[in-house]
Amino acid sequence: MSYNSFGHVFRFSTWGESHGPALGAVVDGCPPGLPLSEADIQPFLDRRRPGQSKFTTQRQEPDAVKILSGVFEGRTTGTPISLMIDNVDQRSKDYSDVAKAYRPGHADYSYDAKYGLRDYRGGGRSSARETAARVAAGAVARLAIPEVEILAYVVEIGGDKIDRDNFEVAQIEKNPFFCPDEAAAGRWETLLDDARKAGSSLGAVVECVARGVPAGWGAPLYAKLDAELAAAMMSINATKGVEIGAGFEAARLRGEENADRMRPGSNMPEFLANNSGGIAGGISTGQPVVVRVAFKPTSSILTPVETITRAGEATEIVTKGRHDPCVGIRGAPVVEAMMALVLADQKMLHRAQCGA
Amino acid sequence: MSYNSFGHVFRFSTWGESHGPALGAVVDGCPPGLPLSEADIQPFLDRRRPGQSKFTTQRQEPDAVKILSGVFEGRTTGTPISLMIDNVDQRSKDYSDVAKAYRPGHADYSYDAKYGLRDYRGGGRSSARETAARVAAGAVARLAIPEVEILAYVVEIGGDKIDRDNFEVAQIEKNPFFCPDEAAAGRWETLLDDARKAGSSLGAVVECVARGVPAGWGAPLYAKLDAELAAAMMSINATKGVEIGAGFEAARLRGEENADRMRPGSNMPEFLANNSGGIAGGISTGQPVVVRVAFKPTSSILTPVETITRAGEATEIVTKGRHDPCVGIRGAPVVEAMMALVLADQKMLHRAQCGA
Amino acid sequence: MSYNSFGHVFRFSTWGESHGPALGAVVDGCPPGLPLSEADIQPFLDRRRPGQSKFTTQRQEPDAVKILSGVFEGRTTGTPISLMIDNVDQRSKDYSDVAKAYRPGHADYSYDAKYGLRDYRGGGRSSARETAARVAAGAVARLAIPEVEILAYVVEIGGDKIDRDNFEVAQIEKNPFFCPDEAAAGRWETLLDDARKAGSSLGAVVECVARGVPAGWGAPLYAKLDAELAAAMMSINATKGVEIGAGFEAARLRGEENADRMRPGSNMPEFLANNSGGIAGGISTGQPVVVRVAFKPTSSILTPVETITRAGEATEIVTKGRHDPCVGIRGAPVVEAMMALVLADQKMLHRAQCGA
Amino acid sequence: MSYNSFGHVFRFSTWGESHGPALGAVVDGCPPGLPLSEADIQPFLDRRRPGQSKFTTQRQEPDAVKILSGVFEGRTTGTPISLMIDNVDQRSKDYSDVAKAYRPGHADYSYDAKYGLRDYRGGGRSSARETAARVAAGAVARLAIPEVEILAYVVEIGGDKIDRDNFEVAQIEKNPFFCPDEAAAGRWETLLDDARKAGSSLGAVVECVARGVPAGWGAPLYAKLDAELAAAMMSINATKGVEIGAGFEAARLRGEENADRMRPGSNMPEFLANNSGGIAGGISTGQPVVVRVAFKPTSSILTPVETITRAGEATEIVTKGRHDPCVGIRGAPVVEAMMALVLADQKMLHRAQCGA
Repeated sequence: MSYNSFGHVFRFSTWGESHGPALGAVVDGCPPGLPLSEADIQPFLDRRRPGQSKFTTQRQEPDAVKILSGVFEGRTTGTPISLMIDNVDQRSKDYSDVAKAYRPGHADYSYDAKYGLRDYRGGGRSSARETAARVAAGAVARLAIPEVEILAYVVEIGGDKIDRDNFEVAQIEKNPFFCPDEAAAGRWETLLDDARKAGSSLGAVVECVARGVPAGWGAPLYAKLDAELAAAMMSINATKGVEIGAGFEAARLRGEENADRMRPGSNMPEFLANNSGGIAGGISTGQPVVVRVAFKPTSSILTPVETITRAGEATEIVTKGRHDPCVGIRGAPVVEAMMALVLADQKMLHRAQCGA
Repeated sequence: MSYNSFGHVFRFSTWGESHGPALGAVVDGCPPGLPLSEADIQPFLDRRRPGQSKFTTQRQEPDAVKILSGVFEGRTTGTPISLMIDNVDQRSKDYSDVAKAYRPGHADYSYDAKYGLRDYRGGGRSSARETAARVAAGAVARLAIPEVEILAYVVEIGGDKIDRDNFEVAQIEKNPFFCPDEAAAGRWETLLDDARKAGSSLGAVVECVARGVPAGWGAPLYAKLDAELAAAMMSINATKGVEIGAGFEAARLRGEENADRMRPGSNMPEFLANNSGGIAGGISTGQPVVVRVAFKPTSSILTPVETITRAGEATEIVTKGRHDPCVGIRGAPVVEAMMALVLADQKMLHRAQCGA
Repeated sequence: MSYNSFGHVFRFSTWGESHGPALGAVVDGCPPGLPLSEADIQPFLDRRRPGQSKFTTQRQEPDAVKILSGVFEGRTTGTPISLMIDNVDQRSKDYSDVAKAYRPGHADYSYDAKYGLRDYRGGGRSSARETAARVAAGAVARLAIPEVEILAYVVEIGGDKIDRDNFEVAQIEKNPFFCPDEAAAGRWETLLDDARKAGSSLGAVVECVARGVPAGWGAPLYAKLDAELAAAMMSINATKGVEIGAGFEAARLRGEENADRMRPGSNMPEFLANNSGGIAGGISTGQPVVVRVAFKPTSSILTPVETITRAGEATEIVTKGRHDPCVGIRGAPVVEAMMALVLADQKMLHRAQCGA
Repeated sequence: MSYNSFGHVFRFSTWGESHGPALGAVVDGCPPGLPLSEADIQPFLDRRRPGQSKFTTQRQEPDAVKILSGVFEGRTTGTPISLMIDNVDQRSKDYSDVAKAYRPGHADYSYDAKYGLRDYRGGGRSSARETAARVAAGAVARLAIPEVEILAYVVEIGGDKIDRDNFEVAQIEKNPFFCPDEAAAGRWETLLDDARKAGSSLGAVVECVARGVPAGWGAPLYAKLDAELAAAMMSINATKGVEIGAGFEAARLRGEENADRMRPGSNMPEFLANNSGGIAGGISTGQPVVVRVAFKPTSSILTPVETITRAGEATEIVTKGRHDPCVGIRGAPVVEAMMALVLADQKMLHRAQCGA
């Protein structure tokens, strides 16, 4: 696996920086013959697009995707699909202060330690802007797994969780937080307004469910479905934790509580619970695949923070620019994309080995 | 990446089942010239070895490792290091009941759905016995990263957490739980005894810290150090969650709390906290790398559980055999091994690209 | 390895078709800090560019490369370098006849058998136009191996070989054939003119020498330097054979003739011959690395050829379009590029494992 | 791709040295449910086994393979198949002279330059003995491609070619040279006897044909079927050249001669020739896949050769030991194995992407 590529047989590579002319993804290994046009990709980019509410960065990016290769007469050809998105609203001047010092919580210091340089223009390659390329690639992946339905939503912001009893799928698109609980969405509005005004930021937890995954996907031991998902999610900017099914709570259950009991079913067994999150031994069970991802609070904040300059001297930094007060919100479409990309790859890997 | 291999340039592949004649690992890409003998590996296997207390399975396995290749005159040659461990105490008869039905919580059903067969002998390839091969490979990886010190320990069993104020490194080897808190170790003894007698089992959380990792390891974006660690840990049997640094708690902090402030230091910056777990933007910061892993309770329990037969009929199952009442305990040496394997690979990848 | 990517740590992926809007390469894993601008790449593209003499296709393509990412303030950042080349002179109308039937010698039939479709626009992805992307990527690779000097030239066209006694490096750029033998270049002009006028085409053999490769590059057994070179060269369009050093002639030498004798030298041993082509056991010896590649004659010819339609009916085809009468000539810069790409990767792999 | 692994989804890794206790292969990604026992592998090892005629090394190795994992109740489980072969007749004493100096033509010097050590025991990892592991793995691969029939034979020894008019498949197993031409086999006996008595050695060319490969296997552009075959063959010890179909001769044909004309056929088109060697654009055409591989003469010869010591002083070396006077002969079963391994992998890759 190359540094900027993900996947085994359905595979994508991304390129581009926050303030370069463009960014993109090359999707390789896509099955041939799938109907594909920009219109299949754009809606997913639009969901992730910044500037749509006061709770996301005010940077205005149309994020219009162009397909440069891999499609002929409206169908995928089986050859690489090159997707490009122009950067339109890059204001590099915003970053003049940032150039001098390392922003705590950011990748500024670690990138400099590794590569010996500071691409201070909006974080360069470490910017969350790269996730647009993932979302575009993920839209292609969805076409390869029509049997699967994927849905991500935010279940917690700043420590305030949704009430599962209020869960309504229809709510998710009705508020700017991808929140399935109307009441929680109301509280979060206040929470985020307060944080924004205070020059602070909040973290979030995103949950993603994939329904329709048949039993048998996943490739033990080192390409387990859950290991692939963990890597996929942890590669997203600002993520600090991943759990499958009951996750860390599973460590607090007793064996007989945790084991998802089975009964005879029609097409497949009926499971009486889904603590496993649809994965056992690294292989899907046919139940919904459930993943949760922790996003830390945005590191770019107006509150002054103690730090050092590139020369090693003490200073303080305030990150002005235009930033999401809660980067986890826009994480939801990205988590969906990574789910789709992992599943498309695993479907094809399963077919390679087991022939169906 | 192949299904049973892990790593990019420092890479290992494992093979073998719970009840086959042997299991092993092939370590490839190891630097040449490192002093290596069985004595460098055996102590790590001994820490993971079953049958050492009443809190682990009573299966008696000496787990004596043999080096079959890759070492000449006491030093690694740079060619593949084949490590083999004989299975000695495999009692297949224990599994006669298991052959008929799927054990809930186990990989029985999903493996059958994928491969169309049931290797009922102790879980076959899905058995935690495979982790012996990882531990052996991990011992080799440690030799390639002498600058790093790795320590894993259990911080929670059955929902009962250690008190961080009681943390004593010396305690870890003094109790059968790899527990750094003497008081907690005492409580866990009772907890586990009760669970065992009740025919039940408990989950655990393992924490692992790697000190001495220089700033600059890790390869964004899809081989980020944290993404690699997440995949590595989630590939271990019975794991359901992974977090880095503050992990899920980071999602509950405000931006200014979470960002690890920096001050001028001697060789490297001084960080005032380590919420990042030593990783920013997928690259190490020079701080300790901190990972936590959730292990579900052992699925093989004496409590009868509702399930179905291979033919799809309703039944109940009791898993007799010999099993760990808390598989997470022996997870500690395995988590250490995976940490070492990831870091050795990332050190070499960094050297490949950046030359140091 | 993904289908359209090559390399392990220094890695590139290409995308684009003959008649799409553009084509490109994403170079990943490049060392940071290397000075890079379009001006470092363009001269190599210009050497490969069509339409420069009557012996190459008359398609007019400026092949102007744009760097879209991975460079900041004139230096590589260590992140993906996206290179794009617009297609300017694509006349799809030329291919109306081709759409109906399979061109013998082409990939038309096999692509259709694999993917179930015909991208008849100039061969789509199977077009030699893709090699522009390789040449662009290869120019970047050269920067990572400044110690190495790479030179490719044509040693045979239509069965007419150069005379090694006439070998003059300076000649290579003086004729449209990359021919180091002035006399041969003169003969080839006639040969090719005749073939072109007859509506036929000719094959060629390209030789490539890399000087300055230190002893020790290459990674046995399945990433041997010669195995990597063989794969690299055989992935170029129209190639049918690869040999290293004495190649097939080595099979006709006796052991004592073939073994390159050694004498004490100053920095490295002095070898009395180079039948090995600078590679022994898959590892470089410090001698020049020598590869020869056979290119078949261009399949697109004006001579009518018996074939079948997509529907399976007998027909005849004449391929008008604009084609090289000898595709091997422009193969020389492509062979150089692949040599550079393999060596950059192997240098970095060697550094990963052996530290220097 | 790791250094000692080959393949993408059907993948194998080998380990072991000429004079270690054993050598082996781990085959990963094999389809489940295939009947497999040692008896399916042993006949192929027996064909490659040394000591069977005076024309191969007199080292006596039973090469008895053991299956250590991946098979349950006589069928493959889809998990790694570990194959082990004990080294029985390793006489390290034979190599005392070799330890002091580098054998020209061997990998002695290049391995030392890379790894900083000399494993003088029979060439260590660079020994042709490693090919036993390939042959074992190849026998497993054959089971995954029952539709394909693979046959390799020697077409040239010491420059003396077979007469294609004398070609008889039945002859191949009737002489110690895998020679399909009875008359040539007779001449080669004399040739080899003379070379052996003179303390010299001869090279050979092996041809391999795979019949039954359907159209559509192969994955352009960098995992083209011919590129994969070229890498596979060039990774075998002592190989210096690979060609597909007409190979280097294709470079001497005119376009209309080289293009394999097509006519309507019953299940697939009828091709009037097979200059392409069954591969166009990197994808199989349905015709027989044809590869030729050049083996250099054995480097270990009794004729004294000028060389240097490890300390860099001039000396002469005579390689006593037990060696094949023509290592290419035993190359035939190895070439067959590599063909099977490539095809099994490509079949599965094709199924992954295209679903059939």
